[in-house]
Amino acid sequence: MKRKVKFLPDNISVTVEHGENLLTVAANAGVFIQAFCGGDGTCGKCRIKLEKGNDSSTQTASLNLDDHAEGYRLACQTNVISDLVVRIPEEVSARGKALKRKPKTTRSISARSLEVLIGQWDIDPPVEKRFIKLSPPTVEDNVSDMKRLMRKIRQDCHACKEPTYDHPELLKELPFTLREADWEVTVILLRGKRVEEPDRIIAVEPGDTTDKLYGLAVDIGTTTVCAVLLDLNNGKTIAEASAYNDQISCGEDVISRIVYSRRPGGIQELQTKVVHTINKIIETVCKKVIISPSDISYIMAAGNTTMSHMLFGLDSRFIREAPYTPTCSQFPLTRAAQLNVTAHPSVRLFLYPGIASYVGGDIVSGVHACRLHKQEKVCLFIDIGTNGEIVIGNRDWMICAACSAGPAFEGGGISYGMRVDRGAIENFHIHPETLDPMIVTIDHAKPRGICGSGLISIVAELLEAGVIDQRGKFNRNLDHPRVRKGPDGYEYVIVWAKGSLIGEDLTITEIDLDNLIRAKGAMYAGYMTLLETVGMTFNDLDRVILAGNFGAYIDLERAISIGLLPDLDREKFYYLGNGSLMGAQISLTDHKRFRERLEVIKLMTNIEMSENPRFMNHYMASLFLPHTDMTLFPTVLEKLPG
Amino acid sequence: MKRKVKFLPDNISVTVEHGENLLTVAANAGVFIQAFCGGDGTCGKCRIKLEKGNDSSTQTASLNLDDHAEGYRLACQTNVISDLVVRIPEEVSARGKALKRKPKTTRSISARSLEVLIGQWDIDPPVEKRFIKLSPPTVEDNVSDMKRLMRKIRQDCHACKEPTYDHPELLKELPFTLREADWEVTVILLRGKRVEEPDRIIAVEPGDTTDKLYGLAVDIGTTTVCAVLLDLNNGKTIAEASAYNDQISCGEDVISRIVYSRRPGGIQELQTKVVHTINKIIETVCKKVIISPSDISYIMAAGNTTMSHMLFGLDSRFIREAPYTPTCSQFPLTRAAQLNVTAHPSVRLFLYPGIASYVGGDIVSGVHACRLHKQEKVCLFIDIGTNGEIVIGNRDWMICAACSAGPAFEGGGISYGMRVDRGAIENFHIHPETLDPMIVTIDHAKPRGICGSGLISIVAELLEAGVIDQRGKFNRNLDHPRVRKGPDGYEYVIVWAKGSLIGEDLTITEIDLDNLIRAKGAMYAGYMTLLETVGMTFNDLDRVILAGNFGAYIDLERAISIGLLPDLDREKFYYLGNGSLMGAQISLTDHKRFRERLEVIKLMTNIEMSENPRFMNHYMASLFLPHTDMTLFPTVLEKLPG
Repeated sequence: MKRKVKFLPDNISVTVEHGENLLTVAANAGVFIQAFCGGDGTCGKCRIKLEKGNDSSTQTASLNLDDHAEGYRLACQTNVISDLVVRIPEEVSARGKALKRKPKTTRSISARSLEVLIGQWDIDPPVEKRFIKLSPPTVEDNVSDMKRLMRKIRQDCHACKEPTYDHPELLKELPFTLREADWEVTVILLRGKRVEEPDRIIAVEPGDTTDKLYGLAVDIGTTTVCAVLLDLNNGKTIAEASAYNDQISCGEDVISRIVYSRRPGGIQELQTKVVHTINKIIETVCKKVIISPSDISYIMAAGNTTMSHMLFGLDSRFIREAPYTPTCSQFPLTRAAQLNVTAHPSVRLFLYPGIASYVGGDIVSGVHACRLHKQEKVCLFIDIGTNGEIVIGNRDWMICAACSAGPAFEGGGISYGMRVDRGAIENFHIHPETLDPMIVTIDHAKPRGICGSGLISIVAELLEAGVIDQRGKFNRNLDHPRVRKGPDGYEYVIVWAKGSLIGEDLTITEIDLDNLIRAKGAMYAGYMTLLETVGMTFNDLDRVILAGNFGAYIDLERAISIGLLPDLDREKFYYLGNGSLMGAQISLTDHKRFRERLEVIKLMTNIEMSENPRFMNHYMASLFLPHTDMTLFPTVLEKLPG
Repeated sequence: MKRKVKFLPDNISVTVEHGENLLTVAANAGVFIQAFCGGDGTCGKCRIKLEKGNDSSTQTASLNLDDHAEGYRLACQTNVISDLVVRIPEEVSARGKALKRKPKTTRSISARSLEVLIGQWDIDPPVEKRFIKLSPPTVEDNVSDMKRLMRKIRQDCHACKEPTYDHPELLKELPFTLREADWEVTVILLRGKRVEEPDRIIAVEPGDTTDKLYGLAVDIGTTTVCAVLLDLNNGKTIAEASAYNDQISCGEDVISRIVYSRRPGGIQELQTKVVHTINKIIETVCKKVIISPSDISYIMAAGNTTMSHMLFGLDSRFIREAPYTPTCSQFPLTRAAQLNVTAHPSVRLFLYPGIASYVGGDIVSGVHACRLHKQEKVCLFIDIGTNGEIVIGNRDWMICAACSAGPAFEGGGISYGMRVDRGAIENFHIHPETLDPMIVTIDHAKPRGICGSGLISIVAELLEAGVIDQRGKFNRNLDHPRVRKGPDGYEYVIVWAKGSLIGEDLTITEIDLDNLIRAKGAMYAGYMTLLETVGMTFNDLDRVILAGNFGAYIDLERAISIGLLPDLDREKFYYLGNGSLMGAQISLTDHKRFRERLEVIKLMTNIEMSENPRFMNHYMASLFLPHTDMTLFPTVLEKLPG
């Protein structure tokens, strides 16, 4: 259910989901409210007054009874359960001074329908169940059980080729299944991976089980493995789950995993761990809807090239060594059970093909999901992460590249950086005059660190407020307690020790800024290099698609402000979210869309960025906020002070 | 090398192989020489005189020095090492009386070229090795190792589709093989089973190993497993081996094996045993030519339906129970290693498809080998055994059936019956007047029993000599010491106790005759029923093909005499030998011939004989020597006394 919230005195109205946190709503709407504790309720700074509407907040220690009666609330303790009119008291908003900037409305873009991007698909999955009534054998007609089954399948479907089967184990139970079920069985048919391939019988079940047809789409991330369980009879998601990849104990990123794999037994250990993670998720989703893992008829997975190699137990060392060749990019359709994935012994696991060592099946799946291969106009597809992947192209050609951005976006190399987790600062505003912060943390918990989206917010806000300059250096002329010279050089204190969970001042330093600039610079240099390779500029782009979990939470305006994303018409930007999972999900639901993946991989050409002199030039030019060439960032130029 | 032997006084000349045993030569040529001990040299009856030529015989106890000097020899102790003129002394031949019958020349038929039957085939095997020189990867061209390989294979062969691969294990070694071999490797490619299927990479070996391309053809018989190792670069057989099927300890025939399989662990045990047998044979052939089992690139096998099920570890119980449906008739192409067959982990085992529970892959392979599916005229294909299989048809249609003949042809149900083995009587003549025998045993050893071909000889000879009548009953009017009433009714003493290995009289009884008549009656009723089904008679047949080991040793005239084979122009008969092995061997050498097996199975329709009233009628009419309707056996009618 939707609720309207109007903020006074600036008269900013937004529509939000019922139950949302008011501090988060304000931050997303660009309404500044002082907030030091991230939403924990302890700093008591985010006092607002409810002028209209009901709320669910209770009186807290920071608010006396009288205030509460008058309508005062702590924004961070208030959930939106009705339409609201909220007044930001002047002393809260900016110590008596009005905000000078217009509120931001970036978030409305995330509401844009995914449908435009990923299009329609049919409920016509690559795995199918058919209920078959066989006539029992007689002396006059005593062909083999399997032949009887295949014959009937073809009789029932004149357009079909006779199906095949390829797994001898299937035969062991077949005669008993047929006889115990009185010759009425359900066959699970896998459609040919290519049009010309006949269907394949992968299982035979007694009776009519056609109402139970489930598929699992899995995104095997380096950090997180996510999966959705689909009811393939109607294409609906019936359960979702995710879990940290158990491999994390062997290293945070793909490089450290590859290093780990070189230990004796390392490859096996990494395989066991990722399979264990998948199995946990299968158990979770199956429990949610009370089905057995053996009811799942197809598993479609996507992951980066290293994760794919590790799932198959392949040595991934050459991914890391120049010239960066993976062992394989198209993985054979495999029985899940062969990889020790908990599944019916006949069920197949499909793993999305990749393009190169650092442009893997997760990217192909995402590109496939948002149909770059069907677009007439040129699109830019971006997945930001430690290895940022970039694809540019349309239905006629595609080029792709990976840029080693480093771990900054995942909190790595940043003094108080952390992964997306409870207490991570995910949103940040700074008051342009007082330079005091408005901090929103995940779960509104006491601030513990800064995650990627928080980092981008902080840097963009500091830049726009003139606290730092375009080189990422602090303004030495500022006389403000939060800007100071620390042991590692100049820094800004985001949270004072008493308000932070870690018991010390939570700061951002010039070194952190440097790391972020390098990370975003690598991404931007990637776009530039790829465009240049095909003789294009940003103006030739019709769409910019932000994929990946990080992309889903990124604040567009701020990402543009720091030069992580190009300064284009905001209408061209689309949030895809977890495209890897999305592609697997679409493929699992519509076999015709599934087959189109072959077009995608045929179109995609990898361009290696490491040691690429063009890339290096663009990279150097990008080590500036947002860029040395400000003509590339006209809207940012307007926002910057001076 | 060929040798000529002329027998005097009857002036019978035959051409034989250098080194053949003279007693065997005489028996095969239809020249009667008294011989009681089977060729053991102990009875001393087979005295002949060498009038010309050299021999290798030594003087034996039964022959004094003077006789030896005059040219007397024991035929059974003499091998033909030069052209010979041999005189049969009158006292030896028939106690002074000349033979009244013309000598038989059946054996000459076996010399007829197989080529007419099985035709030509190319050296173009379904598995191929290609030496590939890859350009090492660079940063500009760093596609995956597998892609690089597949791309190069397609580049080298413009007509080819890009090959596939389907076994993940292949990937584990690939990057190391490529790098250690300096990007020069040999790929083993399996051609698509059907034309439209792309080739499949099954292995990658360092360096150029194209000169080593071996294939193994295996006939998995209920009793014996035979195999030939082929050099697929030239199609030549380089080693052969056979061994008793280890399953024999679980029962002699398929029915007793199926019964055994019902024991706990029985299916597994039978699978283990047949695989062990195959592995022994692989070891043997590999040792012979000093290669490793992992050098074998393809295994092509054929066996009856029960053997096929047992190899795959399938429950075969329904083969035995009406309506006799096997679990499957077309087996998936399987990795040999998955069945525990000693082979390279990637190497595939192809098992010939069958048609029905009692018309298996061995028959399909035989029919495939002799190209019934290419013949314009109608052929009769016969494999005689406990289950006699019959196929009638041509390029437009084929019908087939199995007739339960019982074990008589394999020595079962016959008082002194035995399998083909040392000391088994395999050839037999009877002197038409003295009624004394000429016995030839396997290995010319002391007689121990009667094998199938011996049994047919004995019955045919007894019938033609008037010792038994057409009902298989002994002539009660004969006054001869060898014909007597024994504990089981009338019988003929083939070997007296003192001359037999078993220390008792070796006889054939009326019960034995009855069993043989039933066995041959079932076969003949099968031919009649199938012909009737398609509205044909024997006169419509262009060829009669005798397949199987037993068929290879059968004496055509005698088999016709007893009514086991139809009385047709002898020129229409062909000996195929082990057609099962032959088909596998041809398929292994020529992939186009291999693909034709699909035509064969498409054409073949099984007709069930059990409980078939037509069959029962024909069966009753066939319980006579050779048949109740003597118009079907004109040449036999001439030969019979009276």
